[in-house]
Parts: sequence; C-alpha cells; structure tokens
Amino acid sequence: MKLEDILDVAKRRGFFWQSAAIHGSMSGFYDYAHLGTALKHRWENEWRSFFLGLDDNFWEIEPCNVLPENVFKASGHLESFVDPIAKCGKCDYTERADHLLERELKDDTFEGLSPEEFMKLMEKHKIKCPKCNGYFKEVGQLNMMFPLTVGTGSDARTAYLTPETAQGVYVNFKQEFETLRRKIPMGLAVVGKAYRNEISPRNALIRMREFTQAELQIFFDPNDVDKHEDFKSVANYKLRVFLMKNRKSKKITEVACKNMKLPKFYVYHMAMMQKFYLDVMKVPKNKFRFKELSDEEKAFYNKYHWDAEVNTNSFGWIEMGGLHFRTDHDLKGHEKVSGEKMMINHEGRVFVPNVLEISMGVDRNIYMLIDLFYKEEKERTIINFPRVFSPFDLGLFPLVNKDKLPKKAEEIKEMLKNDGLKIFYDNSGSIGRRYRRMDEIGVSLSVTVDHQTLKNNTVTIRNRDTMKQIRVKIDNLSKVIKNIINCKTDFKKAGKIVK
Amino acid sequence: MKLEDILDVAKRRGFFWQSAAIHGSMSGFYDYAHLGTALKHRWENEWRSFFLGLDDNFWEIEPCNVLPENVFKASGHLESFVDPIAKCGKCDYTERADHLLERELKDDTFEGLSPEEFMKLMEKHKIKCPKCNGYFKEVGQLNMMFPLTVGTGSDARTAYLTPETAQGVYVNFKQEFETLRRKIPMGLAVVGKAYRNEISPRNALIRMREFTQAELQIFFDPNDVDKHEDFKSVANYKLRVFLMKNRKSKKITEVACKNMKLPKFYVYHMAMMQKFYLDVMKVPKNKFRFKELSDEEKAFYNKYHWDAEVNTNSFGWIEMGGLHFRTDHDLKGHEKVSGEKMMINHEGRVFVPNVLEISMGVDRNIYMLIDLFYKEEKERTIINFPRVFSPFDLGLFPLVNKDKLPKKAEEIKEMLKNDGLKIFYDNSGSIGRRYRRMDEIGVSLSVTVDHQTLKNNTVTIRNRDTMKQIRVKIDNLSKVIKNIINCKTDFKKAGKIVK
Repeated sequence: MKLEDILDVAKRRGFFWQSAAIHGSMSGFYDYAHLGTALKHRWENEWRSFFLGLDDNFWEIEPCNVLPENVFKASGHLESFVDPIAKCGKCDYTERADHLLERELKDDTFEGLSPEEFMKLMEKHKIKCPKCNGYFKEVGQLNMMFPLTVGTGSDARTAYLTPETAQGVYVNFKQEFETLRRKIPMGLAVVGKAYRNEISPRNALIRMREFTQAELQIFFDPNDVDKHEDFKSVANYKLRVFLMKNRKSKKITEVACKNMKLPKFYVYHMAMMQKFYLDVMKVPKNKFRFKELSDEEKAFYNKYHWDAEVNTNSFGWIEMGGLHFRTDHDLKGHEKVSGEKMMINHEGRVFVPNVLEISMGVDRNIYMLIDLFYKEEKERTIINFPRVFSPFDLGLFPLVNKDKLPKKAEEIKEMLKNDGLKIFYDNSGSIGRRYRRMDEIGVSLSVTVDHQTLKNNTVTIRNRDTMKQIRVKIDNLSKVIKNIINCKTDFKKAGKIVK
Repeated sequence: MKLEDILDVAKRRGFFWQSAAIHGSMSGFYDYAHLGTALKHRWENEWRSFFLGLDDNFWEIEPCNVLPENVFKASGHLESFVDPIAKCGKCDYTERADHLLERELKDDTFEGLSPEEFMKLMEKHKIKCPKCNGYFKEVGQLNMMFPLTVGTGSDARTAYLTPETAQGVYVNFKQEFETLRRKIPMGLAVVGKAYRNEISPRNALIRMREFTQAELQIFFDPNDVDKHEDFKSVANYKLRVFLMKNRKSKKITEVACKNMKLPKFYVYHMAMMQKFYLDVMKVPKNKFRFKELSDEEKAFYNKYHWDAEVNTNSFGWIEMGGLHFRTDHDLKGHEKVSGEKMMINHEGRVFVPNVLEISMGVDRNIYMLIDLFYKEEKERTIINFPRVFSPFDLGLFPLVNKDKLPKKAEEIKEMLKNDGLKIFYDNSGSIGRRYRRMDEIGVSLSVTVDHQTLKNNTVTIRNRDTMKQIRVKIDNLSKVIKNIINCKTDFKKAGKIVK
C-alpha cells in the first residue's frame, strides 16, 4: 500500500482529499470528507477519554488560534521557529535545505544545523535544483508562523496563527490554576488546529500547513519528577524503545519501565502513550516504538524528548506524537515578557511548575489508521479498523424496500439513535453490495431487518471481519452492539449463529 | 443580569474569559476555560444530533479554515464583505459607522447603506468621536477577512481565513455529491471556526473576531422548493414570527406553518429551528421569535432570510442564527471562477442545486444558555441548564475521605465512565459545599457515596433544581441517571425519596 493508493482510497470513499481542489489546491491543505470527519471525531473522543481519564484534575480547554505577538516572543517561536530555506540561483525555486539533503543523500541527520552549515553541505554534495537543475545560491531562515493584522488604523495589532496548541494553554495556566482550586498535577488539554507555513509540505496528512493537534500539558512540581502515584502499576510494563546507540543496527529493545534511566513521572506517561497505541488503536506491537532523540533533534525547549513512532506501510517509521519534558521554559518565558508571575504556592512550597507535554498529530494518526488497516482480499476490500474507530457503529439495512421492512428499519433506527449509536442507513442495492460497502469504509457491524424480523422481532448482525452473522432480539440490540464494540462480548457468543 | 455580571460569573467559574489576558488581550477574542469547553461540546453534540438527524443524507465534513483567494472571488466576499468604517478627522479613531449611528440615534436600520449615505447621516446628526469629541472626516470600506500569504518566493499564494464555514462546503459539493451516490437533498454540515476582522467587536461572545459556527448547507432541487416530505408533521405547528410590518408595535404573532407565505421547504426548516430552541435548549416560548428581515438587512446572497432570535437578559433580543435561502448564488459563483460545472443530473433533470443554509453562532448560543439559566436565590446561586447541557452529567462525591468511601467512589466512577457518562469528581470540602459548587456550575445531578453504600450498595442522587434526594441501587445507577437526563423518568419516581 503506497501513498498514492491511500490517497485514492481516501478520495473515492470520502475520507479526505485536497482542499478547494476546484480552485487549484494549495499544497499542505486537506479537507475531511464525510467519512474522514466521522473517523476523526472517533479518534479525538478516544484520545480525550483515555488521556483526560488519567487524572481527575485533567481538563480540556479551547484557547483561540489567533494569539497576539507577545505570546510568541515569550515562547521563543518568533526567534527560533524557523526553517532553513535554500533558494535556487537560477530559477528562485525554494525548498527546505534539510529536505533536499535528506532526499539526495538518503540520510536524515540534518536537524539543528545553521544556515551556513547547510550551505556548505549543499555545495559539498553539489545539490541541484529539482526544477531547473541549477545550483542553490543561499540558505536563509524563514519563520514558519502565519502573521495577521488584527483591527485597523491606530488600533491595529500584530498576531499569529498559533503553530502549536500548547501556547494557548500556557497563557491560561495561572487563571485555570486559580479556578481549579490550586491543585497540581493539573493537566490542560487542547484538541485543536495549528498552522505552519511549511515550505515543503508533503506526504498528504503527514506534513500539513493547517493541521489538528491533540496535546495535554501537565503542570507539576519539579521536585516530584521522579515519582508518580501509579508508577507501581507500570513498573514491569515493557516499553519498546529505539535507543540512540542502536540507530545503525535499527534494533528495537524492550525495557521495563522500572529500568528506564529517566524520571518516573516521564516514564509513567511513556507507558500510557504506548498503551494508547497498542491497546486502544490496536497497532501491532512490532510496529510501535519510542525513538530517543539526540540533542540536535530535540525541540529547543525540551529536556527529554522521545517520539512515538509507528511503522506505516507507505512511509516506514513515522512520528505519531512525542513526549516532551519542557521544564519551566514556557512559563518562565511568559513571565518574562508579560510580567505576570508564574510562581505558585503549592502546599507551602513556592516554585514555577514544570510541564510535561503529551503531543499527537491527529491527522497523521488518522492516516495511519487507514494505512495499517486497509486490506485487499480476493473478493473484497476492507478496512478493519478497531471497532471503536469505525466511522459509524453500524450499518442498518432493510433487506428489501417493501413488505413493511423499511418502516420497521426506521423504528429500529430511532431506537438505536436514542441509545447513542451512530448509524449508516442504506436502503439501496443488493444486500451483498451493501455489506461490501460497509467493508470498504470500515464499519464493523451490519444490522439487517428481514422478513423474520416482522415475525419474531429479531435482526441479523454481520461481522465485517469474519462475514459471519448472528441473530439477536431487537430488545437487546443496543446492548449487544455496545458490548461487541467495547470487546465485552465475543461476537459469536452475542447471539444465535446464522448458518 | 447584565453583561458585566455574566462575564464575572463566566470568569470565576471557568466558562470563558478574554484570550491571552496576561499579554494584553485583543478585543474580540475569548478562550473557553474547562467548564466552557465542556458546555460547548455538549451544545455542539446536541446540534449535530438534532440537525444531522433530520435526514439520512445529512453529513458532517471538516474543510480547512485557510482557503485560497479564488474561493472568495467566487463567493463575492472579496468584493462585498466590507464594513463601513468611519474615521475621526482629529485623532484617527476608527469605528463602524452603523454602530456609531445606532448608538447615538437608538435606531438599528442602517444596514445596506453606501459609504456616502453613511457620511451624510453622520454629518446630519453631528456624530462626534467618542475618544476625542472631534468630527468624523470620512466613511470608507474595509474588507473584514484576514489575508495570509501561503508559501514563499515564487510559490507564494494569497489566501484568507474563512469568514463563514459555508464556503468550505460549497467547494466540496461536487465531490461529496459523487461520493454520496448522487442523491439530493444532500446536507453538509460544519461545526468550525470562522474569522472576521470586526472593527468594533463587542458584547463578549456576541460579536467576536474568532468564533465558531454550526452550519448546515442543504442542496436541493429548486423545483421542489415548495415541498417537503415531512411537511404534514408541522403543518399546524405554530411559528412565533416577528414580521416587518410589526416592527413598530413589536408584536410577535403565532402563525401555523401551513399559513406562512413562504415555500414549504423553507418553512419546514423554520419549524425545526424553532423546535431546537424550544424543545432541546428549553428556551421559554415567549423568549423566542423569528425575525423577518428587510431587503436592506438581508445578506447580499439571500432570497429569504429570517433570523432566529432570543430575548436575553443582558442585551434583549439577539440573533442566535438564521435560515438563509441562498439560491444558486454560491454554486454559480464557484462555477464561474473555477470553470468546474456545478450542474447535476438528478433523476433525469439537469440543474444547479439551490442551497438552504441553517446557520448558528455557537458562542452566542453558549452565552445565551448562561444568560437565561443563571439564577441567584436566597441561599445559593444556580445555573439550571437543561440537563443535557450540564457541563458534566453528574458530580460524584465520597461523603467523607475515610472509611473506605473513596475506594468505593472510585469503583463507581470507573463504572459510570465506562457507561459513557461525564463525571465531575470531588472529594474536598463539606458535602453541602460540594453540592453548592455543582449548583454554581450547572451540574444537574450529584451522586454521593455514604456509609449506607457500603452496607447495601445504594447511593443518593441529589437534584440540583429541587435539592431533593433519592436513593438508588448502584446496579441501576447509569440507567437511572441517563433516564433522568433524557427526561424519560421523573426524578422523584426514579428512586426512593430520602426524607
């Protein structure tokens, strides 16, 4: 399964496609179509329920995407959030210098170099312009934020579209800390948009200019960095880690949490992230790893920084998220620029909280779900998403469009809807074709209303993965479906098997 | 309850506050704090479930917020989405001319005038600058969209933050129509951000520069504008309408749908919008009306345009949303600029679909919920939101922090969470104080784990509105709570009343 195939499936089925295509899309912008939107909501809600569920003092907030300039003075983005841009001496084509080098030299260790160092490498390896075959004349720096002018005339102010959801959280920290009755650890999450003027957006949902992040900022006492009240529960849990020293051998090792040479508060959350990938998203174990980053690769504000990576079919190992120990870098930056004290008095101790950030790119996680679970079988194509990620909980079909079956199906639809289930209702085409459609878009259960339904108030449920069917009483239908989706009941045991 | 009081409550409790306050907020930007975010999600989900539930062919999509320039050439926004801006001749202060006139003359009929007409009125009424008391020298036009440059160098393109979610839908119309198997009516909804460089943002969440819209675009055959398959079900339903001719008398009349002098497809959706306000949001009947707009007041693309208004305590009647018959204006505009044909062949007829838009401002609806349901009683303050809009389904408390009660409460929490309920867990302070806290933030049910729980596996549920309590078996707890929230069971009958 290559990128082109996934883009093709995504477009034909209605998951996502390039934005505003009729007007000539700008690269790095994708729209979620009707199925992709449903899938994205599923992912976001699973993320919320998992990560906000880790602590009673973890909350979601929704800061603005447009923030005033001083926010980014304080965060360091105005000065440091820059890309090295190489410019062709002949045709003025621009591309990221690190991307040019990576592509030509099949190497990916170019992070953290200065423009001069990039220029030297470009010259040394005689990198040529992919458009006109000329040579590059210079490597400059371009800030990746989108600036805006808010207001007009004498009231105008400079603002930026936020390049990460995190800053909107930091400027809310003090007020939330007061409102939430001065307890830490306190977690503030955002599932929201971020914007970066990437010079070479690429690989569909992997590197976009407008994208969605799911991030949780945990504020805690730096004195407690080597504790977590639930650490015991993960002490023997094995993390799959890809250490710096194994870069060449590409070896992934399994290390129990208690043996990781990192603070316990950090390691505990590594374990939680891995569990989210393995247990909730059902990523096969051997396709997941935590990558240790070198000092050059780390973001400028991070003390510890490991990436959660998944081995995709189309791109190999791809960063899906990261665990970032940002220390007090951000809060102190905001204190310095705003004059607002970020010190807190917590149980007698006075300090600036440290921040642990769990960060995930929502779009690439969506892409990965399709990449990993799309299958072509002899008779059908299927996306066997984990059931909780099905764009809809079930397909619902009257077997035929007569004999009072549509009316009965409508009644059942109302009942299931009232019980909170999301339904894809379809009454056209042969039943076999309707089942195939569900397979193609990854809906894991199909409920059919047939003539027997009218006689004994039962319906059939078909399992996408095995194509087996069971027959179930309508009275129990919602409960049975929920139990199957949440893996509380085995499908075959949930009803009478249809032979 | 005035604006200042609501802002104060919103800030102290954690609903919303000015964005990035520590760096000096820009006017027109508000952040949702932890309770506001929960409330907003509730509202958005109720909106989705109500309006997407109207037809099996209504879907949600998520287009980008940044769209290329041609989108807004096509929509007319580049040319027509302008505000009349008056500039002071003495101090350069700028403000919307219509707002200045409205304030000075206590009149609100200034929409649709030209800059010259505004200037004449300003001179005639000798309107003075509120800052320096000078006279205004000119009225100009300012486009309210935020422009952006995407990319750099020779690849740079001009784009805009979308000023309404609708345009992102129109550019997706053709592709969705194909993917969704060429059926109309087809509805495409967006719950997403929109951005406008308002010159005088004001009144907190009522007029913002970054805001959230919930909009549904229904594409249909213009030949069918005077039908709706469910019209019969609303024929005798009475709409509360505020007609043009009653502007002076301020009289609201009740008119049965069948007697409205508007096409049935339009009237049916008026009825649905009114039902959403009266039945779902529980707005008292006498506080709701549909306002008929004059030709000058209508948006430039609308053939029919009525506003759904609610009578708030802080501002009087405020537009909460609108029902817009946009004809084929938008699709034809996109066809003209992009060259992409918007004609469809539907059951043998070839035509450009017409669009009916149900549009709501999410933020002002959130504001309105607090405005309408906030109460100050003798002994407590309370926000008696309709139960489905409670930021959380329930508060959960161990009566005391000992005697194994916290452990039992944790077990119950896990159980309720698994059943999909949203919980506010609190174990500090006296139980009376914890109840008061729930009243203050509008959580409608409080579950307490007490010593009797350990003996007979029952808990108490307290009703925010009556302060009465019932005792319920833990085994039935999720079901009882859901039934109370969804008004399927009367509170008093849902368990044994605690005397």
